[in-house]
Amino acid sequence: MSIDVLIKKIKEKNNPTVAGLDPLLSYVPEHITTECFKKYGETLEGASKAIYRFNTALIDELSDVVAAVKLQSAYYELYGWRGVKVLDETVRYAKDKGLYVIVDVKRNDIGSTAKAYAGAYLSGADVGGKLIPAFGADSITVNGYLGTDGITPFTEACREHKKSIFVLVKTSNPSSGELQDKKIGESPVYEVMADMVNGWGEGLIGEYGYSCVGAVVGATYPEMQKVLRKRMPKAYFLVPGYGAQGAGAADVVNAFNEDGLGAVINSSRAIMCAYKKTGDSVNFARAARDEAVRMRDEITAALG
Amino acid sequence: MSIDVLIKKIKEKNNPTVAGLDPLLSYVPEHITTECFKKYGETLEGASKAIYRFNTALIDELSDVVAAVKLQSAYYELYGWRGVKVLDETVRYAKDKGLYVIVDVKRNDIGSTAKAYAGAYLSGADVGGKLIPAFGADSITVNGYLGTDGITPFTEACREHKKSIFVLVKTSNPSSGELQDKKIGESPVYEVMADMVNGWGEGLIGEYGYSCVGAVVGATYPEMQKVLRKRMPKAYFLVPGYGAQGAGAADVVNAFNEDGLGAVINSSRAIMCAYKKTGDSVNFARAARDEAVRMRDEITAALG
Repeated sequence: MSIDVLIKKIKEKNNPTVAGLDPLLSYVPEHITTECFKKYGETLEGASKAIYRFNTALIDELSDVVAAVKLQSAYYELYGWRGVKVLDETVRYAKDKGLYVIVDVKRNDIGSTAKAYAGAYLSGADVGGKLIPAFGADSITVNGYLGTDGITPFTEACREHKKSIFVLVKTSNPSSGELQDKKIGESPVYEVMADMVNGWGEGLIGEYGYSCVGAVVGATYPEMQKVLRKRMPKAYFLVPGYGAQGAGAADVVNAFNEDGLGAVINSSRAIMCAYKKTGDSVNFARAARDEAVRMRDEITAALG
Repeated sequence: MSIDVLIKKIKEKNNPTVAGLDPLLSYVPEHITTECFKKYGETLEGASKAIYRFNTALIDELSDVVAAVKLQSAYYELYGWRGVKVLDETVRYAKDKGLYVIVDVKRNDIGSTAKAYAGAYLSGADVGGKLIPAFGADSITVNGYLGTDGITPFTEACREHKKSIFVLVKTSNPSSGELQDKKIGESPVYEVMADMVNGWGEGLIGEYGYSCVGAVVGATYPEMQKVLRKRMPKAYFLVPGYGAQGAGAADVVNAFNEDGLGAVINSSRAIMCAYKKTGDSVNFARAARDEAVRMRDEITAALG
């Protein structure tokens, strides 16, 4: 099961964190953008080339510290197909370096279309009878608003192609409660979604007792995390909101089970932009590594 | 307001339909795939080139019949960045032919990330202080599960860049009810979402009384459509489910208001694959046109 691959990497590195690669162009150190603009113009191509150089330098420094990277698709799509090409190239680069690669796409659609998304990110495209992987991620995020038939193509890809997914349950943003906290009978929507996640994850349980169908649960709502941890004991949690969104180590301990497993904590801006605090943009990758190490130590200390 | 542009095209062509360009490779006539495979290999590149040829031939025949085209992003992402490049090229081609272009991406994320998606599809990417459009659609679909701060970047793009969005309210797939039909107090989730759509659409009303924040409401649930039509009087409905998903003209009349406006009906497979019924794959584009004309006549007759 794919979730076992992630857990092994977390155990090996003694680090339940995932570094987010959400490379808005303004995060890229100026010496890189200047050089790429000079070579490729102040264009979507120039921007995309700069992002690729930024990403690969970060991965080089982070690959022995973190278990996984998470690429936020929006920051690649923003630069058009050239940005999406960099998404593809970054996935390959990170996998070559031994990292577990999550692509944060939050895709959702009716069954036939969800099958195409599963093909794009997890299984592959049927071209002349051969299955050719397009983006070839280990895992993606999905949105369950459409219900089971919109999720089945992804769970089938988990089973047949050794992949995992994380379904949005309680998101980290300020207005997530507008729908997600509303009560359906006795339970808020996020608990109803949690029960659906449990159902989708049945039959996809790996050797550590966790399912390949995980859940996105924001670090910014630690009390709800506690409730959801109990309600989805077998779901691995992908936890955004640590760092730049305001949550600290104390806020994420609720996401873990007593076995010390069950969650992978994401930090994006705090790692990528660590150099803005040190003021040394030339050594941006080293600053990112230092922040990732600090985060690892902080979280492992909080877990005790 | 962008919604007025769509409405004018619907009035000009006396046709409230949108042709879906969801080009799974198996929909492309064999003479095209054979030629592209020969030239570019049985690869993602070969597949993407075949899809571009298919799309442009369809657009040539459809552009004086339909008001709009809707590109389902999944069927481009399936072929990797090369497929996404074809999405980009198809958007440009369709706009050059005077069509209103909706990209069906169902994107959703926290505010800062939603801003990147709005940049990618509607407003543009900031590169060296200039705003460069990446995909440059007129409109996209979005998923409102994350609430207002995940939607605001899109409504801002509607206001500042003359665009529109369609928010998923009640989707056309069989299991859409698992979450969407559950009751929050007296109202099902889809009505709660409808009320949010009304709120998001305020201040974005055009000259015909419709908002640039529309709603996706499946043709496969005509009774719910009737309820939602009343609940969101100013929202334009993007209605999937006609044709291959089983709904007919009688099922979509509920989506319209008494002014004969208020809805745009999508058909994808029935138009793209019309040639599979005639058996004449060489004239696939003509068959698509005939089906689009038939659909127009059927719907305008049902509207009376």
